[in-house]
Amino acid sequence: MNDTIVALATPQGAGAISIIRLSGADSIAIISKLLKSKNKIEEANGNSIIYGTIWYQNQILDEVLVSVFKNPKSYTGEDAIEISCHGSPYISQTILRLLLENGARLAQHGEFTQRAFLNGKLDLSQAEAVADLIASQTAASHQIAIGQLRGGISNELNFLRQKLIDFTALIELELDFGEEDVEFADRKALFELLDIINEHTSQLIQSFKYGNAIKNGVPIAIIGKPNAGKSTLLNEILNENRALVSNIEGTTRDTIEEVINIDGILFRFIDTAGLRKTDDFVEHLGIQKTIEKIESAQIILYIYDATNQEVEQISTEMKNWNLDLDKTIVIANKIELISEAEQKVQMEQMKKQGIEQVLMLQAHEMPLEHKSNLMKALIIAFNQNKPQSDVIISNTRHYEALTEAQKAIFEVKNGLAIGLSGDLLSYHLKDALKNIGTITGAIDVDKDILGTIFGKFCIGK
Amino acid sequence: MNDTIVALATPQGAGAISIIRLSGADSIAIISKLLKSKNKIEEANGNSIIYGTIWYQNQILDEVLVSVFKNPKSYTGEDAIEISCHGSPYISQTILRLLLENGARLAQHGEFTQRAFLNGKLDLSQAEAVADLIASQTAASHQIAIGQLRGGISNELNFLRQKLIDFTALIELELDFGEEDVEFADRKALFELLDIINEHTSQLIQSFKYGNAIKNGVPIAIIGKPNAGKSTLLNEILNENRALVSNIEGTTRDTIEEVINIDGILFRFIDTAGLRKTDDFVEHLGIQKTIEKIESAQIILYIYDATNQEVEQISTEMKNWNLDLDKTIVIANKIELISEAEQKVQMEQMKKQGIEQVLMLQAHEMPLEHKSNLMKALIIAFNQNKPQSDVIISNTRHYEALTEAQKAIFEVKNGLAIGLSGDLLSYHLKDALKNIGTITGAIDVDKDILGTIFGKFCIGK
Repeated sequence: MNDTIVALATPQGAGAISIIRLSGADSIAIISKLLKSKNKIEEANGNSIIYGTIWYQNQILDEVLVSVFKNPKSYTGEDAIEISCHGSPYISQTILRLLLENGARLAQHGEFTQRAFLNGKLDLSQAEAVADLIASQTAASHQIAIGQLRGGISNELNFLRQKLIDFTALIELELDFGEEDVEFADRKALFELLDIINEHTSQLIQSFKYGNAIKNGVPIAIIGKPNAGKSTLLNEILNENRALVSNIEGTTRDTIEEVINIDGILFRFIDTAGLRKTDDFVEHLGIQKTIEKIESAQIILYIYDATNQEVEQISTEMKNWNLDLDKTIVIANKIELISEAEQKVQMEQMKKQGIEQVLMLQAHEMPLEHKSNLMKALIIAFNQNKPQSDVIISNTRHYEALTEAQKAIFEVKNGLAIGLSGDLLSYHLKDALKNIGTITGAIDVDKDILGTIFGKFCIGK
Repeated sequence: MNDTIVALATPQGAGAISIIRLSGADSIAIISKLLKSKNKIEEANGNSIIYGTIWYQNQILDEVLVSVFKNPKSYTGEDAIEISCHGSPYISQTILRLLLENGARLAQHGEFTQRAFLNGKLDLSQAEAVADLIASQTAASHQIAIGQLRGGISNELNFLRQKLIDFTALIELELDFGEEDVEFADRKALFELLDIINEHTSQLIQSFKYGNAIKNGVPIAIIGKPNAGKSTLLNEILNENRALVSNIEGTTRDTIEEVINIDGILFRFIDTAGLRKTDDFVEHLGIQKTIEKIESAQIILYIYDATNQEVEQISTEMKNWNLDLDKTIVIANKIELISEAEQKVQMEQMKKQGIEQVLMLQAHEMPLEHKSNLMKALIIAFNQNKPQSDVIISNTRHYEALTEAQKAIFEVKNGLAIGLSGDLLSYHLKDALKNIGTITGAIDVDKDILGTIFGKFCIGK
């Protein structure tokens, strides 16, 4: 932690500029050994830029700009240097080697951000947000990551921690006067405090499903009988022939996933094997998989052939497959082949069966209007799950810690109801505090956990 | 030229940091519309760094560092800005879009460097060196590019131009007094001046072969009879089975090229079809190609099977193929199968035939020592062409302009010898000056030429 680390901070490959990043107490001393410049780098102010040349074997390697950052006003909180050189892999690799030869050490994955965390520039959930931010591909996932980086989750968790600490203080005050057997803390007020804590924790936990879907893509299962038009629908959505389409029953044996960005949200479409009884073992496996996909999907597109299926059969089949009506959009396909009157009839029958989310469309060479209706329906279906709170959890580690914390809070609540001793209440409260503390790193976090978190970063971050 | 241009300056893809570059009079005004910062960007000094946040639709897009450069102390010579944001393609693309919406224009290929040229920060040969520098993969090609960027070629050409201008001034002085028919300029001094000019021009022209080989790789043709071990040799050099190897005659029909970096120099190995008469039309074409490759190669590796070939035959064959002994290294292969006495005999016979550059080796599973000897021989052979002057031309455009200039200088020299009129001498002198001037851009360069030069750059440079 006392040494000076170095890494390439820009993507590999040739470009106009490459950036090499140094951080640690010796950053300025190390670069000064290689740099010739009119303005001495040792005398440079923080947040200033020095023009100079880097030398190697008595020859100029490159003309560079060196940005100087002084402890604590840097990303890591240490003295730090960023060298902006010509974007040639030969040059950046040679500068990197020279810095290593002059006392720097190659940074490990995420080590710059880890130092920022250890120096108190970021808490742990903010540090994790840096990796999410870099990985985010859509407006929605970016929004969650930047919110987390800016301290959205940290503030909420600090609020929770403070409430829990207040609670614990009241309980422990009673313990100090334990022998006198008095209850300082008003039980009603304690219950109210617990309710507030529980409410906030629950909201965060509930937001995970939404946050995780935004981060990793909203899983949508496309299901229906063979030849209903599942693959055709997927192809039209993707505007390309990713899925194999044919009119032979049972063509799609394995599941196919494709992602598409609609209005800044990533949807993961999962084409599935047709829903029918089969003697073909491989296809049977495909149907097993379909069942699993239905269970994990957030939205189900149930597609049927409007030219040859009774609405009552559909309703029965949907019940057989245990489809949740709230998350299912029923798609009547091939409507170009039936009359408007017939469409109307099917729509009314659907409503009678309690099926409200219905789209009538032509999947093959889908008209733009049908496509647009489908996209809108998907956005609406997804937003049904939108949490009320602004703070959204998208990280599995946070979700698990909050779930553990909630269990402990339940124990406190139950304990309070049955008059559990202050000792035991305090034990559960500390368990809840510990779990919430691991998210921001407010308590000492296990080295292994840090290793896992920062191991996912790129080298230069 | 008066507008403000913008581009991503770092390679595409996710990394720790991305840099977006703005240049032009409105750079600071444009970024100030998007940036919130404690220290106002409008009041920032040149070469300073401002920390701030970039906003989009009332939400924070990213935390950024903005480097401020003030005209003329910037790469382009204009006011310029570099935005260092998190290395997420989503963020950098959104910032780019916001800058475009707020008055910047997307830069064309090489437009930043073109502005640096137009603003006199670099001459044209230095600007070209920027692209070479980014593309350089080896120490040697890097050295040529950085020398050119630092003005090595420019200084030499300015010296030449000055000498030519001096010469022209003397001739034109005579023209002014033309009617009096006097010769102000001492003819002997003029010839000496021309010799100096010619000497320098010739050295630059001669350096091109070396410079070009360093930039694009030194072409080495591997030739020899079928089954002499050409492909085996190439594979051993490359340490992988890139070329198809078999013991059926005529396996290698097309030519195969592979590059390898030896001691900082890029060598291009060209495996060729075996040298023999053939009725197979396709193979015949391969042999035609071999002849062309021999002519363009800088080094020829002539390999023969030491177990079944007479040295005299080899010598004859080398003559038949018109091989230049100075650039040919003869390799006696399969020496593990003959006695040391036999090796000695072959070596002596070779010397008798005037063949000096000979390596005896085992190509199949080549011992390290043999490999090392081969590498050394290649470096020595290549360095035979090393020019005496420090200034090395590596750019075809420069080579062609210098060749044209030299032609004009010859015309002057001939003209002077046969007493050509001052008018005509002056015409040729101006031709020479023009050609040399196009290299650095000292004279107005055709728009098309600028387009060709900067069109090869990446967008952000």
